Amino acid sequence: MPVFTEYSTSSRDLRVLPSFASPLPRLTPSFEPVGSEEKYEVLIAGAGPAGLFLQVLLARYGLSDKSLLCIDSKPTALKSGQADGLQPRTLEVLKSLGLADEILTEGCQMWEVAFWNPTQDKSGGIERTSIVPDVAVAARFPHEVTIHQGRIERILEDDLRRYSARGVQRSTRLTKVELDEAGDAEFPVLVEMEGPSGSRTVRTKHLVGADGAHSLVRRSMDFKLEGETSDFIWGVVDFVADTDFPDIRRRCAIHSDNGSVMVIPRERIATGEYLTRLYVHVQEEVKPDNDIASEEGIKGASKAEAKARREKITMESIFAQAQEVFKPYYIKPRRADAVDWWAAYQIGQRVSENFVKQDSKGVNRVFIVGDACHTHSPKAGQGMNVSMMDSYNLSWKLMHSLNGLSPITNSRDTILDTFETERLTIAKELIAFDKEFSAMFSGKIGAEGTEGLTHDQFLEVFSTGNGFTSGCGIEYPETSLVEKTIPQGLVTGSDYLSGVLKPGRRLLNVTVKRHADGYRRDLQDDFPSTGRYRLLILTSTDLLTQSSLSYTSLTHTSSILEAFPPGLIELVVLHPLPSNTFVWKDLPAAVRTYAEMSFYNGTELQDAYSVYGLAKEKGAMVVVRPDGYVGCLGELGEEGLAKVEGYLKGCLRAVGDEKGNGTSNGHS
Amino acid sequence: MPVFTEYSTSSRDLRVLPSFASPLPRLTPSFEPVGSEEKYEVLIAGAGPAGLFLQVLLARYGLSDKSLLCIDSKPTALKSGQADGLQPRTLEVLKSLGLADEILTEGCQMWEVAFWNPTQDKSGGIERTSIVPDVAVAARFPHEVTIHQGRIERILEDDLRRYSARGVQRSTRLTKVELDEAGDAEFPVLVEMEGPSGSRTVRTKHLVGADGAHSLVRRSMDFKLEGETSDFIWGVVDFVADTDFPDIRRRCAIHSDNGSVMVIPRERIATGEYLTRLYVHVQEEVKPDNDIASEEGIKGASKAEAKARREKITMESIFAQAQEVFKPYYIKPRRADAVDWWAAYQIGQRVSENFVKQDSKGVNRVFIVGDACHTHSPKAGQGMNVSMMDSYNLSWKLMHSLNGLSPITNSRDTILDTFETERLTIAKELIAFDKEFSAMFSGKIGAEGTEGLTHDQFLEVFSTGNGFTSGCGIEYPETSLVEKTIPQGLVTGSDYLSGVLKPGRRLLNVTVKRHADGYRRDLQDDFPSTGRYRLLILTSTDLLTQSSLSYTSLTHTSSILEAFPPGLIELVVLHPLPSNTFVWKDLPAAVRTYAEMSFYNGTELQDAYSVYGLAKEKGAMVVVRPDGYVGCLGELGEEGLAKVEGYLKGCLRAVGDEKGNGTSNGHS
Repeated sequence: MPVFTEYSTSSRDLRVLPSFASPLPRLTPSFEPVGSEEKYEVLIAGAGPAGLFLQVLLARYGLSDKSLLCIDSKPTALKSGQADGLQPRTLEVLKSLGLADEILTEGCQMWEVAFWNPTQDKSGGIERTSIVPDVAVAARFPHEVTIHQGRIERILEDDLRRYSARGVQRSTRLTKVELDEAGDAEFPVLVEMEGPSGSRTVRTKHLVGADGAHSLVRRSMDFKLEGETSDFIWGVVDFVADTDFPDIRRRCAIHSDNGSVMVIPRERIATGEYLTRLYVHVQEEVKPDNDIASEEGIKGASKAEAKARREKITMESIFAQAQEVFKPYYIKPRRADAVDWWAAYQIGQRVSENFVKQDSKGVNRVFIVGDACHTHSPKAGQGMNVSMMDSYNLSWKLMHSLNGLSPITNSRDTILDTFETERLTIAKELIAFDKEFSAMFSGKIGAEGTEGLTHDQFLEVFSTGNGFTSGCGIEYPETSLVEKTIPQGLVTGSDYLSGVLKPGRRLLNVTVKRHADGYRRDLQDDFPSTGRYRLLILTSTDLLTQSSLSYTSLTHTSSILEAFPPGLIELVVLHPLPSNTFVWKDLPAAVRTYAEMSFYNGTELQDAYSVYGLAKEKGAMVVVRPDGYVGCLGELGEEGLAKVEGYLKGCLRAVGDEKGNGTSNGHS
Repeated sequence: MPVFTEYSTSSRDLRVLPSFASPLPRLTPSFEPVGSEEKYEVLIAGAGPAGLFLQVLLARYGLSDKSLLCIDSKPTALKSGQADGLQPRTLEVLKSLGLADEILTEGCQMWEVAFWNPTQDKSGGIERTSIVPDVAVAARFPHEVTIHQGRIERILEDDLRRYSARGVQRSTRLTKVELDEAGDAEFPVLVEMEGPSGSRTVRTKHLVGADGAHSLVRRSMDFKLEGETSDFIWGVVDFVADTDFPDIRRRCAIHSDNGSVMVIPRERIATGEYLTRLYVHVQEEVKPDNDIASEEGIKGASKAEAKARREKITMESIFAQAQEVFKPYYIKPRRADAVDWWAAYQIGQRVSENFVKQDSKGVNRVFIVGDACHTHSPKAGQGMNVSMMDSYNLSWKLMHSLNGLSPITNSRDTILDTFETERLTIAKELIAFDKEFSAMFSGKIGAEGTEGLTHDQFLEVFSTGNGFTSGCGIEYPETSLVEKTIPQGLVTGSDYLSGVLKPGRRLLNVTVKRHADGYRRDLQDDFPSTGRYRLLILTSTDLLTQSSLSYTSLTHTSSILEAFPPGLIELVVLHPLPSNTFVWKDLPAAVRTYAEMSFYNGTELQDAYSVYGLAKEKGAMVVVRPDGYVGCLGELGEEGLAKVEGYLKGCLRAVGDEKGNGTSNGHS
């Protein structure tokens, strides 16, 4: 197309780059460190999946290198990580950040689980009992993905470097942490660290300990670990398998008379071959003797005894034990160099009694996330997921607090309080579930009269646990962020795992057709992780009548949206009418003004009303939190509008509300 | 998961990076330039979408910076490109390279087209006649995507830099091209170029001219342009629209009594707003006066006349004309600075009579691709797509030739001959279609008794043209790469656009369920663009009987695969049986050996047999070329196996065939 006259704006050049997330507005004064001391608004200790993910999120929300420092004791990005499983909910969150594509394409998608048990005829050996879907609940991605943890960290770090010139400050180790309000009330967290150029002291408004199971931050804050005193010992090995076992590419729970093995298929590698991971139960229950237990004063075996026991476990012993379980099938590495990684571990379930330390004025100053909060077995595939979701939950609350976006109630930012309430609830549920799942998995199954469960009992725990193991079934308790009351008759059904709306649970994805352009779209794509709230309105069938509840409610949303700083609440609207039977001018002006590109036919492709448990004659208003969880449910009409507005005023500072806006972060 | 014993291989570290494409094997001696002259195996002139895409493909197939040079006269990557539409077929190809994700996520997906025409009641103004799907044929991505051309080039260049340290050599301009066999028969293409450090002379085995409509390569080879002598003048503008027109986010063909406009919705930009592109017909048919016509000696107006006419077109005149067409709706830029880019162009349809120049021994030495081959209007959204597909077609044929993978027939590499045969066919069809489509679009429609077509006639051309405009309906003619004969009764139906198999057409994607792991997968993902052929076998229902045609044919595939260099032909197998009713040992060993991860249930999710026009009781064997086009169709059984093997021996050098392996590229 030879052009003979041409003009273009300079900003057009920018558009060749990947899109950047839009930063959150800041109502507090911008951060300008004064004095000679090194100061930050947020310091993150540890750049594993939890710490790195938090840094990525805060950087995307707009925290610059000046405000945000993340340190890690290791000299390079971790390449020897052993977590490898991403749950459907974690995939949804990564998708909401534009970070899921490589993982979905190049990871191993795990769609099915096979259960193997001792043969019915007691002839020895094992036989397949059943194959079931790996993810039994409704989810945008109805499978798990396994992929090398180092790769996930590389993907996160690639994204981080688009927002942060510094990235992670490596080879830098925390040596001391204390709260010193007397020294500086605004930057009360005093941190000492050692790096390549010696030791230094840093002050920060907030410190986040993402420093793992042995967390110095946790210990410095005197948070006690609560937990079990019994551990199991397992071996784990990643290799290219040579086997005649028929289900080597399925996730398998194998119970034999000779012990238990879990098979986790892994991704394809550069040779074109596929990895397999085995978890092999190599020793019966033992007393705890690992470092955490010792450090935390949990009574156990002596360090010398523990060391001796560990040394007995070798790669050969892991394969020998696995071979016993797989009989009559054979399994071995395809070649001598086909073993990629192996390890042995021993661990119980423990959770920190606190996740947050407040200063004397009640400001949340020190947080812990990830393994620093909770340790547990890897078999339910929870570790990296729950850790990253701790950071996901904390990130926007902390950012809203720093930017002065959250309201001040009784002189305090109560939104930030919900981090501990919500994540401690989940951690405790995780530990309880993992205890049950691990013990059950380590026990013998199918051998009548022994300590084991029957296969049917096992399958039941597996299935009911699926809401938890998928990450899609978790439910946050009532707080200022979760208003549990639902108007009588608004929601029908209680199959929350299949999408029926419930405050505290995540909004399930549905496929909808956009009015403006006919785009078949995933609704979750209108709920990106940018730190914004969304008002999701499902209109009723009366939408086209100007005096109707739908019409007047939509008109009134303008005043709700405008009561808060611009752009902090986005409008998404579904309707249940046939497509293309009306045009923009038949609708309330607010729809096109605020939702031109987020106004959908909610019934043509998938019946969103029925998935969400709503009646098309009634509709509903749903406030969705920045992390995709339902915060509040209201009816169309005045009462619902008032409820929604009241809920939002508990979450966000309204325009003109100047309370607490005097200090540098507006809240501390 | 605290680990107390751990071991890992060093190669594990590599796995944090995005996967690399596996290079093609090389049977010819590796390229080592000798002497003082600068020499390459392939030199690409021009790094627009066609040239850059070719460089990406050759680098992925394994051509290093030593063998491959791409130069471009511009100092930086093009940021002012005006092509913006990617067809469904181009999206499929980009997906097969792992390059589609960002485009699909961040581009504007165009799902629907609206047709607007003069109001029926002759009251003046326009009204919507219909809304139809933008893509009416079966495709993996049933929509087009519009996105800034500069972004597509950036995505290609990002990928290129993973394989090439040099990337594109910029600010370097071709000044002279000639074939000089006397000087060096192996590197007969002599090229002079000017760069930042002066002029230099380079020799290359092959030169590809991706140097645009004014191609020096084309002119140096004396290829004549054949084409029309009449042009239309159009204005084009990208802006954020303020309008009450209801379909501004749909692709629209608007015909009014005041002229014609095409609306192309574009992607979201950093402000959160969405761009719109308008093509506005600003002047009736004129005599050609553009540079191409003059250079090629096509009779036209003088340069002075042309210049005067161009200067009449301004941004204001484009918007004024558009406003006339949109009546009774208003349309204007949302703000003074909301115009992103505008241009005016004038162009007819022309195609080069040759795409390739051979040397005296019949070796294909100089190629042209993209705009250098064909120029046409942008309205059918063809430009960038056809250009990139030229390169896609050439890339693997050229690489097979250089690496000695293609057979030598009568002392010549006839596979490389098919580039011109196939792409010239498509270019001529493109020009013919574009001529019809453009003329029709520029004419008035719905005004009875005038020169125009009725709306129904227009819609019919639009719909029948969809196979072409989607890129999914093109069909290559019979050559050594396309064996058109189909065994009697093997394929039922002739709805090739819906997937019925036909040699010369691309294999339509189907969703299949993998036997090994239950993965719900797109079949096209087993046909990545790595330069390999695939043997796709659809077994019949007799698969589990050892004496059956399916079983014995699968067993025999081993000997076919092993007749060629390892890994050059991959095996993909579909079966029509219920899932999980058999295990690996019930199948021919070749299935697990060659297709463990590409063996699928072809009926559970989607009935691939019926889509492809095959009977489940009969099955079929399909050879799919490296570019995803069907090359040959055979029945299960001895005759079919012989046909498939014969076809493949015409495409690939068999093991032990040493003919022609004596020179450095094995073929020249």
